[in-house]
Amino acid sequence: MKVSLFAVSALLPSAFALWPLPTGLSVGTTALRLGKTFDIKISIPNAPADLVAAVSRTKGFLANDKLEALVIDRGASSAKVVAAAKSLPSLTLSLVAIPAGGCKSLSSEAVAPIEDRVEGYTLTVPADGSGAVLKANSTLGLFRGLTTFSQLWYELEGSTYTLSAPVKISDAPVYPYRGFMLDTAGTSTAPFAVSDIKRTLDAMSWVKINTLHWHIVDSQSFPLVIPGYTELSAKGAYSAAAVYTPSDIKDIVTYAAARGIDVIPEIDTPGHTSVISKAFPEHIACAEATPWASFANEPPAGQLRLASEATVKFTADMLKAAAALFPGQFFSTGGDEINANCYTQDNATQASLASSNQTFLQALDTFTQASHAALRSIGKSAVVWEEMVLANPVTLANDTIVMVWISSSDVQAVADTGFRIVHSASDYFYLDCGHGGWVGDFPTGNSWCDPFKTWQHAYTFDPVANLTAAQSTLVLGGQSLLWTEQSGPENLDSTTWPRAAATAELFWSGPGGDVQAALPRLHEEVYRFRQRGVAANALQPHWCAVRPGVCDLTA
Amino acid sequence: MKVSLFAVSALLPSAFALWPLPTGLSVGTTALRLGKTFDIKISIPNAPADLVAAVSRTKGFLANDKLEALVIDRGASSAKVVAAAKSLPSLTLSLVAIPAGGCKSLSSEAVAPIEDRVEGYTLTVPADGSGAVLKANSTLGLFRGLTTFSQLWYELEGSTYTLSAPVKISDAPVYPYRGFMLDTAGTSTAPFAVSDIKRTLDAMSWVKINTLHWHIVDSQSFPLVIPGYTELSAKGAYSAAAVYTPSDIKDIVTYAAARGIDVIPEIDTPGHTSVISKAFPEHIACAEATPWASFANEPPAGQLRLASEATVKFTADMLKAAAALFPGQFFSTGGDEINANCYTQDNATQASLASSNQTFLQALDTFTQASHAALRSIGKSAVVWEEMVLANPVTLANDTIVMVWISSSDVQAVADTGFRIVHSASDYFYLDCGHGGWVGDFPTGNSWCDPFKTWQHAYTFDPVANLTAAQSTLVLGGQSLLWTEQSGPENLDSTTWPRAAATAELFWSGPGGDVQAALPRLHEEVYRFRQRGVAANALQPHWCAVRPGVCDLTA
Repeated sequence: MKVSLFAVSALLPSAFALWPLPTGLSVGTTALRLGKTFDIKISIPNAPADLVAAVSRTKGFLANDKLEALVIDRGASSAKVVAAAKSLPSLTLSLVAIPAGGCKSLSSEAVAPIEDRVEGYTLTVPADGSGAVLKANSTLGLFRGLTTFSQLWYELEGSTYTLSAPVKISDAPVYPYRGFMLDTAGTSTAPFAVSDIKRTLDAMSWVKINTLHWHIVDSQSFPLVIPGYTELSAKGAYSAAAVYTPSDIKDIVTYAAARGIDVIPEIDTPGHTSVISKAFPEHIACAEATPWASFANEPPAGQLRLASEATVKFTADMLKAAAALFPGQFFSTGGDEINANCYTQDNATQASLASSNQTFLQALDTFTQASHAALRSIGKSAVVWEEMVLANPVTLANDTIVMVWISSSDVQAVADTGFRIVHSASDYFYLDCGHGGWVGDFPTGNSWCDPFKTWQHAYTFDPVANLTAAQSTLVLGGQSLLWTEQSGPENLDSTTWPRAAATAELFWSGPGGDVQAALPRLHEEVYRFRQRGVAANALQPHWCAVRPGVCDLTA
Repeated sequence: MKVSLFAVSALLPSAFALWPLPTGLSVGTTALRLGKTFDIKISIPNAPADLVAAVSRTKGFLANDKLEALVIDRGASSAKVVAAAKSLPSLTLSLVAIPAGGCKSLSSEAVAPIEDRVEGYTLTVPADGSGAVLKANSTLGLFRGLTTFSQLWYELEGSTYTLSAPVKISDAPVYPYRGFMLDTAGTSTAPFAVSDIKRTLDAMSWVKINTLHWHIVDSQSFPLVIPGYTELSAKGAYSAAAVYTPSDIKDIVTYAAARGIDVIPEIDTPGHTSVISKAFPEHIACAEATPWASFANEPPAGQLRLASEATVKFTADMLKAAAALFPGQFFSTGGDEINANCYTQDNATQASLASSNQTFLQALDTFTQASHAALRSIGKSAVVWEEMVLANPVTLANDTIVMVWISSSDVQAVADTGFRIVHSASDYFYLDCGHGGWVGDFPTGNSWCDPFKTWQHAYTFDPVANLTAAQSTLVLGGQSLLWTEQSGPENLDSTTWPRAAATAELFWSGPGGDVQAALPRLHEEVYRFRQRGVAANALQPHWCAVRPGVCDLTA
C-alpha cells in the first residue's frame, strides 16, 4: 500500500524508525528477517574504497544495533510471525549508470559543489525472499540509501526483522544543505577532541546531515594550526595540546567526506578576532579593551584593523592558507557583530580611514573583497553571516551564501538581496539558548535567546515563510548550531541530539511534518543513537516511548 | 588577616576554591605546599573504619586532583614562591572529646535524627611548617573538614600548594538540611545504574550536601524491590534488570552514609501510583484512564483507592516494608497532585466513601494517618509535599517535614501551619525546567516551569523571605531537584552540576552571597569535579574561567 508520509506511524504495528522520512515511501505489512547469510553486495566494478567501508559499517549496525521495537512488549507478540518470516538474502548496490570516467568515490562526491551533488536513491526490499536492491545515480546516493536500509530493522530473540515488507523507497532531499554548526573556540577546559568531532560526524551521517559548519576559532581561542601562521595557535590556543593540527584537519575532513559530509570551515572576520592579538597585536584594534561591552558583544573585545593595508593582506593570506587545508567548496569569513565603537576608538584605524579617504563601510568592502578574492584564487566560494548584506552591505560574488542568524524575521530582507540563504536563525536553531546567561555578575542570569529551542519548534519552522516563489529557490537549506560558551565534551551529545535530527528531517523531507506523527520515530532514533554510542537526550519517559501517542497532550 | 566572606576571591592571587564557603574563615598570603611525606593522621583510639576510608579517599584527591590555579598562567608565575615554600608535614584529626560510649562511626552520625547531627569543625593550616589540625565534636564534622581540606590545594610542576596560608576555619552549616532529589522512575531507557547514583553521592559529598531525597518510584515504573511486595517491581519495572534490589539499596545507603549523606526514600501516595495497578489492580482507581489529562497531571493516570480499607492497609504495610530497607529517620509518603476527578469517576471509591460516610478529605486523612502510623511503628518520621498541609490538609505528627514545590510563594502559608519546611520550589530549584515540554502533540513545546533555573537564580534565593523570626526557625534547609522525564544517565552530571552546588552553598553558608564573588569559586568547583570524574557543565568559556571577573557584565 502507498501511504502518506505522516500516516505511516499510525498504520504500522510499531513506530517506523526511518529518520529523516524518505520523500517517497511505500510499505507493506509482511514480516521479513535478515537471512543468516545476509550480505551486502556492491555490483560496481572497482567500487571505491570508501563505499566498501560504508557497506562494512552498515553490516556492523545491522549486527549491533539490536534495537527492540518501541512497543510495550518490545516486539514479543510478533515472535511467531517473525519466526515464520521469509529471509532476506542480500542487498545489492548498483549505479544506474557508470560514469564515463568511472565511478567516483563517496568522499569526492560529498565535497563536490553543492549544486552538483546527487543524494537520491531508490531502495526496494521485497517480501518474497528475493534480494533487496539499492540503486542511485551516485556513490553518495548509495550511501544515503545504505543509511536508510540500516534503520529498517528491529531485533527480537536473535532475529533482525521488519514487519513492514515490502518496502519501496524513492528518496531525495528537498534541500541540498542540511547542516550542523559546531563552535570549537569557546569551550570550557579544552576544545573538543578529534574523537568528539568524529562521533558527531557519525551521528550527523545517520540523519543525512551533509555539512559540518565548523566555527573553529573565535575571540577566546585559536585552536587551528595554519601553516605559515602557526603563531596564531601557538599563542592563541588554550594550551599547546588544545589545537587542531593540519594532520587532525585531514583526519577529520577525510572521516567526514567518507560519511557524505562536507566541512565548511569558518574563521570569523573582522570581529571575533581578539585572540589574534596574542601573536599579531599590530592587526587588532581594541584588543581586550574594557569595558568589553562597549567594544564587543562578548568578551574579549578585539577586531581586525580592516582599514590597514597590511591587515587586509595578512587576513587574506591567512584565510587562504587556512582554506587550503579543507577540500570543500565553501569557506566562511563570518562578518557578524562588527562593533563600530571599537574602530571609532582605534587611532590606527581612524588614521588609515583618513589617509585613504574611506568610510568604515568602504574599508569593510575592500577588506572583504580582498579576503574573498584570495579564497576564489584557490577555487573557494564565500559564506558570510547576514550582517554582510543587511547591516553592513558589502560587495559579494553572486555565489556567496548568506546565513541568517539574528532572527528568522530577517530572512525576507536577505532574500531581497538575491543571495542564497542557509537558515540558521537563533530563534529556531540555536541549541545553546535557554541555559542561562554566561556573563558574570548577572544575578537574573537568563539567556539572551531564551527560551530553549525545542525540537518541536525547529521541526515546525517554515523555510519559505514570506518568500516569493522565486525567492524560495534561494533557500539552500538550514542547520542547527551549537555555540559552546556553556558546552563541552560533557554535554555535546545530549545538547545536540535528538534536536539536530529534527532540523535534519525538516530540510531533507521538507516542511509540513507534524510533531505528533514524528515523535514515535524520533524516539526510535534516540534509542538507536544510544545503541551506537551517542548519548542522545531523552524525549519522554520510557513508558511513553513504548506507547506511541499515549502521552500526547490530547490522548 | 580576617576577611569578609565575599571579599575573599578579590583579595587572593587566584580564586579560592572552597565550596561551600566556610562560615568562619581567615586566610593569609603565604605559600605552603604538601610535604613529600605528607600524611593524614587520626588521633582517635579505634577510629571508625569509615573515617579511615574517608581519610584514604582524601589522600587520593590530594594526589590526583591536580587542579591548576584558574588564572591565566595557571600558577606558573608563582613557581619560585611555591618552590621556596615551607612544607606541610601532616594533618591530624581529633575529636574535641571522645564520647563516653566511644567514637561513633561517620555512617551512624550521618543518619542520626537531623536535630542531633553535628557537622561543624575547625581546621588550622599553619604557614610555618608545623602540622595542620582538624578538630570536631563528631566524626561527621571531621569528614566535613576533610572535604574542605581537600579543596585548599592547587597543582604546579609536581607541587601541591596553596598561596593562602595560614588558613583558619571555624565552620558549621547554617541549615541542617542540604539536599538533592533524584527521580529514578521516569527516566528514558532504564533507571540510573547504581554506579550513576554512587557517582552522584560522591559529588554531593564534595559540596557537603547531606541528604539524597530519592523519589524511587512513580506512575511510569516501580524499580524498587520490596520484600513481600516483589510483584510491584516484577510487573512494574521497565525490565527485570531495571530494579534496585534490597542488596542494591543496602549498597547505596551504606555508600551514602560513609559520605555523610542520609537517604530519604519516597514512595509517592496516593497519586503517582498508576504502575501499582500492574500487580495490584484492585488498589488503583482510574488506572491508565483516558484522556489522561482529566485524571492526572501527567500520564499514566492512576491513584491508590484511599477510601478502601484494604488499600489503606496494603499501602501502610507496603510503605513499612519499604522503609525498613533504609536506615534514616525520614520517609516521604508524597501526597502531591491528587486528582479529584479520578476518585469522582471511580465507582469503588465512591462506594467506599458512601458506606463509611466519609468525604474525600476525611478518607485522605485516615489513609495518611494509617501510613504514617506504620512508619512511626518502626521509628520513622514522615515527609510530605505541600498539598498535605495546604490543598488537602490532613492530620500530621508535629515532626513531619513539609516540602514546598509548587511555588516559593507557598512557603509563607506552609509556615503558618507550623510544620518544618524544606525548600524545593519549582521556581528556584527544579533542575529539569526549561528543556521543553515532554508531552506529545505539543508543537510550541515549552516547559511548564520555564525558564531554565540558573545557578544564579537559586543562589540568590532568600530562605526566610516573608517569614517571621519564629517561622524562620521552621526552615530546615533546601534542595535541588531532578525530575527525569527528559533526563537519564546521558545528562545526569551536566544537568545537575554545578547548579546543585550553588544551592548547597546557599544552605550551608547561608543566604546573602553574591554571584559575582561566587563565580570564580564555582568555576574551580567545576574543574575539580571534572578531575574527579563528574562531567559538570561549563559556566563560561575557559578564557573567562582563568580571568576571574573579566567576563562580568560590567567589567
